[in-house]
Amino acid sequence: MGDNEGIDKSFLDTVKFDDRGLVPAIVQDHETGKVLMMAWMNRESLEMTLERKKACYWSRSRNKLWLKGESSGNMQEVFDILIDCDGDTLILKVSQIGGACHVGYHSCFYRKVNEDGSMQICDTLMFNPEEVYGKKH
Amino acid sequence: MGDNEGIDKSFLDTVKFDDRGLVPAIVQDHETGKVLMMAWMNRESLEMTLERKKACYWSRSRNKLWLKGESSGNMQEVFDILIDCDGDTLILKVSQIGGACHVGYHSCFYRKVNEDGSMQICDTLMFNPEEVYGKKH
Repeated sequence: MGDNEGIDKSFLDTVKFDDRGLVPAIVQDHETGKVLMMAWMNRESLEMTLERKKACYWSRSRNKLWLKGESSGNMQEVFDILIDCDGDTLILKVSQIGGACHVGYHSCFYRKVNEDGSMQICDTLMFNPEEVYGKKH
Repeated sequence: MGDNEGIDKSFLDTVKFDDRGLVPAIVQDHETGKVLMMAWMNRESLEMTLERKKACYWSRSRNKLWLKGESSGNMQEVFDILIDCDGDTLILKVSQIGGACHVGYHSCFYRKVNEDGSMQICDTLMFNPEEVYGKKH
């Protein structure tokens, strides 16, 4: 049992953060199984996610905690968190408001490889990023 | 267009390998959408995967190319490869023979977090690792 009353730390203590203190989180629609994005969490963002049941990550580019949807409104309600055999990768099963991708697609994985090595779009555009984030984004 | 006849390199040139020369690949069942594992690829293993349509990774622990299933027989036939907006994460959509996880489960993500912070098993055991890999594994 953990230090706080009634809080079991066995999950948190199983997570292996890398040498930067981060763990990758695969984000999946909890109903369809569609993979929406991958992001990175530090222990603080993981604890916030567990408490609030809203996905919170560590932004490597901005070097700060990042509550998903804080700018765009495209929050992620978290239904389940899974951990892999090695403890170094997580899955978040979420309900995604709007699109997950800053480009405007439902999923960040909106391109697939063709047989000849070129790519094609394979997803749906959900919003116009200029309208959501402003022209400067 | 690429250097080789008829081979378009636009996908390969879009992939952003990290400072170790690696990119994470999320491995998903191509029919059910279930996430089976996450592994790492270098450019060579990605090119092998594209050519053979069998998943090939870079083993960070063994520091060598790793054709998935070479020991266990649990190969992954690759149907699609997707790439994210930043070009730094891939999805492989596969058909998995047996289980993906070396512990014997169908998916490496065989544990989920409970409300109180403890964990429970949420997946099916597919094989006995001692029988597949031998007692020393």
